[in-house]
Amino acid sequence: MLKVGVIGTGMIGRDHIRRMTTVLAGVQVTAVTDVDLDTAKQVAETLPGAAVHGTGEELVADPGVDAVLVCSWGPTHEQYVLAAIAAGKPVFCEKPLATTEEACRRIVEAEVAHGSRLVQVGYMRRYDEAYRALKAVVDTGRIGTPLMMHCAHRNAAVPGHYEKEMAITDTAVHEIDMVRWMFGEEITATRVLVPRRSRNGGELQDPLFLILELAGGAIVDVEISVNIRYGYDIRGEVVGEDGTAALGELSPVTVRASQQLVSPIAADWRERFLRAYDVELQEWVDSIAGGGRPVGPSAWDGYAAAVVADAGVAALRGGDRVEVSLMPRPGLYVEVAA
Amino acid sequence: MLKVGVIGTGMIGRDHIRRMTTVLAGVQVTAVTDVDLDTAKQVAETLPGAAVHGTGEELVADPGVDAVLVCSWGPTHEQYVLAAIAAGKPVFCEKPLATTEEACRRIVEAEVAHGSRLVQVGYMRRYDEAYRALKAVVDTGRIGTPLMMHCAHRNAAVPGHYEKEMAITDTAVHEIDMVRWMFGEEITATRVLVPRRSRNGGELQDPLFLILELAGGAIVDVEISVNIRYGYDIRGEVVGEDGTAALGELSPVTVRASQQLVSPIAADWRERFLRAYDVELQEWVDSIAGGGRPVGPSAWDGYAAAVVADAGVAALRGGDRVEVSLMPRPGLYVEVAA
Amino acid sequence: MLKVGVIGTGMIGRDHIRRMTTVLAGVQVTAVTDVDLDTAKQVAETLPGAAVHGTGEELVADPGVDAVLVCSWGPTHEQYVLAAIAAGKPVFCEKPLATTEEACRRIVEAEVAHGSRLVQVGYMRRYDEAYRALKAVVDTGRIGTPLMMHCAHRNAAVPGHYEKEMAITDTAVHEIDMVRWMFGEEITATRVLVPRRSRNGGELQDPLFLILELAGGAIVDVEISVNIRYGYDIRGEVVGEDGTAALGELSPVTVRASQQLVSPIAADWRERFLRAYDVELQEWVDSIAGGGRPVGPSAWDGYAAAVVADAGVAALRGGDRVEVSLMPRPGLYVEVAA
Amino acid sequence: MLKVGVIGTGMIGRDHIRRMTTVLAGVQVTAVTDVDLDTAKQVAETLPGAAVHGTGEELVADPGVDAVLVCSWGPTHEQYVLAAIAAGKPVFCEKPLATTEEACRRIVEAEVAHGSRLVQVGYMRRYDEAYRALKAVVDTGRIGTPLMMHCAHRNAAVPGHYEKEMAITDTAVHEIDMVRWMFGEEITATRVLVPRRSRNGGELQDPLFLILELAGGAIVDVEISVNIRYGYDIRGEVVGEDGTAALGELSPVTVRASQQLVSPIAADWRERFLRAYDVELQEWVDSIAGGGRPVGPSAWDGYAAAVVADAGVAALRGGDRVEVSLMPRPGLYVEVAA
Repeated sequence: MLKVGVIGTGMIGRDHIRRMTTVLAGVQVTAVTDVDLDTAKQVAETLPGAAVHGTGEELVADPGVDAVLVCSWGPTHEQYVLAAIAAGKPVFCEKPLATTEEACRRIVEAEVAHGSRLVQVGYMRRYDEAYRALKAVVDTGRIGTPLMMHCAHRNAAVPGHYEKEMAITDTAVHEIDMVRWMFGEEITATRVLVPRRSRNGGELQDPLFLILELAGGAIVDVEISVNIRYGYDIRGEVVGEDGTAALGELSPVTVRASQQLVSPIAADWRERFLRAYDVELQEWVDSIAGGGRPVGPSAWDGYAAAVVADAGVAALRGGDRVEVSLMPRPGLYVEVAA
Repeated sequence: MLKVGVIGTGMIGRDHIRRMTTVLAGVQVTAVTDVDLDTAKQVAETLPGAAVHGTGEELVADPGVDAVLVCSWGPTHEQYVLAAIAAGKPVFCEKPLATTEEACRRIVEAEVAHGSRLVQVGYMRRYDEAYRALKAVVDTGRIGTPLMMHCAHRNAAVPGHYEKEMAITDTAVHEIDMVRWMFGEEITATRVLVPRRSRNGGELQDPLFLILELAGGAIVDVEISVNIRYGYDIRGEVVGEDGTAALGELSPVTVRASQQLVSPIAADWRERFLRAYDVELQEWVDSIAGGGRPVGPSAWDGYAAAVVADAGVAALRGGDRVEVSLMPRPGLYVEVAA
Repeated sequence: MLKVGVIGTGMIGRDHIRRMTTVLAGVQVTAVTDVDLDTAKQVAETLPGAAVHGTGEELVADPGVDAVLVCSWGPTHEQYVLAAIAAGKPVFCEKPLATTEEACRRIVEAEVAHGSRLVQVGYMRRYDEAYRALKAVVDTGRIGTPLMMHCAHRNAAVPGHYEKEMAITDTAVHEIDMVRWMFGEEITATRVLVPRRSRNGGELQDPLFLILELAGGAIVDVEISVNIRYGYDIRGEVVGEDGTAALGELSPVTVRASQQLVSPIAADWRERFLRAYDVELQEWVDSIAGGGRPVGPSAWDGYAAAVVADAGVAALRGGDRVEVSLMPRPGLYVEVAA
Repeated sequence: MLKVGVIGTGMIGRDHIRRMTTVLAGVQVTAVTDVDLDTAKQVAETLPGAAVHGTGEELVADPGVDAVLVCSWGPTHEQYVLAAIAAGKPVFCEKPLATTEEACRRIVEAEVAHGSRLVQVGYMRRYDEAYRALKAVVDTGRIGTPLMMHCAHRNAAVPGHYEKEMAITDTAVHEIDMVRWMFGEEITATRVLVPRRSRNGGELQDPLFLILELAGGAIVDVEISVNIRYGYDIRGEVVGEDGTAALGELSPVTVRASQQLVSPIAADWRERFLRAYDVELQEWVDSIAGGGRPVGPSAWDGYAAAVVADAGVAALRGGDRVEVSLMPRPGLYVEVAA
C-alpha cells in the first residue's frame, strides 16, 4: 500500500484524494497540507489516520509519506518538487511543472544531479484510451511516416478571468505535450494565426490557430476554440505518407429521433478525460510501488512544454514564426516519451 | 477495507482476485479455497495474509471474511450461496446463480426467509458504459415507449465442447438478463428460429435467432452467431414509438488506409467488457462496505434468467413458442432491476 | 429517342413524365391517357406533340409509341400489361404487377407465350446506390454465405386510410422483392409477430415484425414501423458466415451543435429514393432502346412478390407460419434477379 | 432541345459528350471540333447529324449551335470564350477560365461590355450533394458565423508530370473556388507551409499546407496530399461560433469483417464527383435553355480563382504571406456566388 502525501487540497487535490481513496488500488493518503490549513484539516477528517502538516516541506519529510502529490498553486510547484527530489521521494506534480522556463530547468538539473527519475508531470492525455489507440496505430507504421497532424481543442465556454495567452499556456499546452509524445520529437517552432473573432468570447481573441513545427519536419495545426458552446470536443488526425489515423467519436449510444441520427458530445473535460486521470494515477502508483521509477511524463517533458508554450505566447504577441530553443537533453531523459 | 473470501480459484476466480488486488479500491482478499487445494494455495502465496480453507463452508464461516465471492463450478453455486445466506454474509455469485430452476428457487426462498438482500449475481452488462447510456436514453422517454429491441450477440469462435443449447444458456443468457433490466419487465415467452447453418460451426447449429416476448407486449429478437470469425460484437437497438436508441460503436480510433475507413472491432469479450467487470465489482464492494445491501442483479434476477433460459432451450428443442412461468415475485424484489 | 406512352397521369404518372422530360436522356413522352381524360389533356399540353388517347388500349396501339409505362390504378394494371404484350411492346408497370396472384400468373403466362421478356415491374430498390453496394459486397463472398438479414422499414407516418394489411402489401413488399434479389432465392415461408402497439398509429397494429424463410435456409426479419415519427429510415444488414454488410448511413453532412453530433435523416421516401427512380427508368430506357429487352424486375418477380405478400397477409391474420407456394418457374426467367 | 457545340474532343470533351448524349435531358451535341481534326471526326461519327468544324471560331459561328462547351487545352480557352461572347452565345468553359490573370481579366471585361452573363466556369464542387448540404447548414446560421474551415484534398497518386505548383493551380484551386462560394467572400491573402516530404512523391514536395485569409477575417487551411495512396478523399469542416458542420462520409455500405468495421473510400475523383459533373451540366443546360442566363460559377469566379492561385504559387515560392489583389468587382457580378 503506497503512502501518499498531498500538497494542496483545493479542487484538484481533493479530486485526486477521492480518486486514491475510492477508485484506485494499492494507495492510501497519509498526509495533507494546504496554504489554507483549515481546508487541509477538513479534508483530513475524512481520511482516517492522515496527518496534517503546516508546510509542504514538512509533509515531504514525514516518514509516513512514500511519495508526494503536488496540487498546489502553480508558482509553488518548484519548491515542493525540489524538496521531494532532495528527499529522494517520487513526486507527481500537476501541470505545469513550474511557471517559468528557469524554474523547470532547475528541477531538471536537480533531478539529473539526483541521478534517477523521481518526477512525473500531470499530462494525462497520454493515458486516454483514444490517444493511446491512435499512437498505437501510428507506431505500427500502418499509415507510413507521420507528416502532419490536425488537432482541435474546443471548450464550450471559459470563465471570465480567462486571458488571451491562456489559450496557449493552459489550453493548447495539452496538445503541445501530446504532440511531442505522439511524434517522439521535439517541437522546433511555433506560429499563431488569428481568425475572425467569435461573438461568444466577448473581448477575448477566440479562436486561435496554433501551428507547430517538429524536429523531423512534420507540421501540426491546432484549432483552439474556447467558447464554441456546443460542447467539449478534442479532435486529432495524424496524416501519414500512406493514410491517416484519427481519434474516434467514442459515443456509447446513438439515437434516431426528430429526423436526426444523434450521438452525444461531452459537456466538459471531466466527462471526456475522467478515466484518463484514473489510469494516469493508477499507473503512477503501480510504477513507484516497491521502489520503482516513474515512467510517465518527465521533468524534461514539463520543461519542454513550458519552453514551447513560451514560444507560442511570443508568436501570439509578435504575429510571426518563433523558434523554440531547448537546453541539451540530459542522458537521464533518453526519449521524449515513455 | 472490505475483506472478501473467494471460493474457486480457476480462471475467473483468479481474474477477480487480480481485480480486487490491483484495480479496485477498498477491498482485499483475505481467504481462498478451491476444489483443487493446491491451486488455492498457489494463489494464496501471492496474497499476503490470506487464509486457505479446505471447503467453501469453512471459508464462509471465517470471521476474517466479510463477504464471499463464488467463482466455483456452476453445480456448486447453490450450496455456497446458501451457506453465505445462512451466515448472513453478502455473496457475489458468478453466473449462473445455480444450474436448475429449483436450485435458484431455493436460494430465493432462503434469502426471502433471511429478510434482506445478500445475494448479487454476476450479470455484468448492466455495468457496461454503452448499455447504461442506452438505458438512460430509453428511460428519458425520448424515443417513446419501447416496443421492440434488436440484438446481436456475435463471437468470433467457440471452443469444441460448446454445445447447441449453450447458445441459449451461456451466450444469450446475457441478453435475457439485459432485456429484463432494460425494459423493467419479465419475459413471458420465447421462440427460437433456426437459420441456414454456418460452415464455421461444424456440426453446431449456428446461428440461432431467439425471440422474446415481454410482459408489456414488446418483442425482442437476438441473433446468436458464435463462429462469425470477424470479432466479438454486441449490438442492440431499442425501437420506441418515436425513435430508436442503439449501442454506439465505441471505436477509440479510425484509420484511413488501403481505400477504406476502418474502425477496429473487439477480438473477444474480455476486450469488450473488461471495464464492465471492474465497475461491477467496485460497485458491489462500495454497496456492501459498512454493512450496506447489494443493489445489483438479485437472486430473483438469477432465478428469472434461469427460467427463461430453460424456456429458450425447450423452444430450441421443440421448434415452437414456449411460455415462461415464474413463481410469484416476493416483495423483497420490488423491481425487476435496480 | 425512345417514344414512351404513359397510361395514368396521376401523381406517379406525372412524376415519371417529369423525369422522362427533364431528367433522363434518350426518351420522350409521345402519348398519354388517363381514366380522367381532362387530367390527361392538361398533362399533354405541357408535352409538345404528345397525343391523348381515350383508352390505354388505344395508346398501346399508337404507332408513335415504342414502349408503355403503366401508372394507373392497380386493378387496371393487368389489362394494360396484357395489351402491351399482345402488341409486342415493352411495358414498364409500376408496382404491383397486378392485384391478385391469378392476374400476375396470367401476365407471366402471356409473356412466356410471347417468348421473350417485355415486362418490367417498378421495384426500384434494386437501383438504389446503397442496396447495390450492399449486394456487391455480398456477391464478392467477403462475408461468406449469407445466413440472415435484419431489415427495418420505417415511415414517419402513414395516412388515415392505411390499413393493417398494407404493412405487408404496400410497405414490406419492397423488402420482399429486395430480399429475393439480394439472396437470389425464393421466399418459402412467412411469419408475422405482433409487438406492443405504438400510440402513434391509433387503432392500427403498428409495428409488425415480419419473418421470411428462404429456399436455402436463410432467415430474414423485417421491422415494419410506419408511424415512428423520426423520419423515413430504411435499414438492412446481411449476416454472413464470416462477417456482415449493412446499408450505410448516407449522410452528406454532419453537424456538431448543442452537445450533439448530428446527421440528418430523410423525411420521406421521395428524399431517400429519388435517385433510385431516376436510375431505374434510365436503365429501362437504355435497355429497350434499339429493340433490346428489359433486364430489371420481371413479371416473375412481380408474381412472386404478390404470392409472398399474400402469404404474409395470411400469417398476419392467422398468427402462424404460412408456406409460400409458387408455380414452377418458366425457363424465360432463368434467375430470380438480373 | 439545346444544341451544344463542343470545342476539344480529348478525354474531358468526350466525357461531356457522353454525358450530354446518354445522361442528361434536353440537350444534344450538334457540332464538334478539335486541334486534332481526326479525333473530332471520329467522335462526330457517333453523333448522328453532328457537324465537324475546322476551328473553334467556325463552330461558334455555326447557326446550329446554341451554346458552346470549351474543353480544349487551357491556353486556348481565352480565344474561344471571347469568340462565344462576341457571338452572344452562352459558353461553358472547363477550368481554368484562362491561364493568366490578364486573360481572365480580358474575358471579364468582354462579358461586362456585352452586358449580361454568358460565361460559366467548370468548378463542379458547388454541384456536389455533400458540399451543398454543408453550405445549406452554414447558411441556416445553426453553427453561427463561420470563423474557420479545415479542408483536406487527398489524391492516391499523381502522374509523373505533376509539378510542385500544380498542387496549387490544379489541385487546391478547387478549394479556392469552393471557399469563396461557401463563405460568400473574397480571399485576401495566402500562405503555404511545407511539411516533411512523403516518400511516395519522389522529388515532389508533398504534402503542402495552404492557408487562406478571407475578407471577413475567417481563416481556411487546406492539407494537399497528392500521393497518399489510400484513396481520393475530400474533407471539409466549417467551424462556426456555436458549432461546426462537416462533409459526411457518404459510405453506401459498411462491412464488418476481419476484426474491422469498414467503409469504402473512393479510388479517384471520377468516383467521388461523377454525379456533381452530371448535375453541373444539367443545371447549366436548364438555365440557358429558352434564352436564360447561366447562374453557376462566373467569369469573375474564374478570374478570382486565378488571382488567388497565383498568390498561392508566389507564397509557395517565397515562403511567406502573399496578399491577393483583385480588380474592382463589376456590377454584373453582384455576388461572389450564385
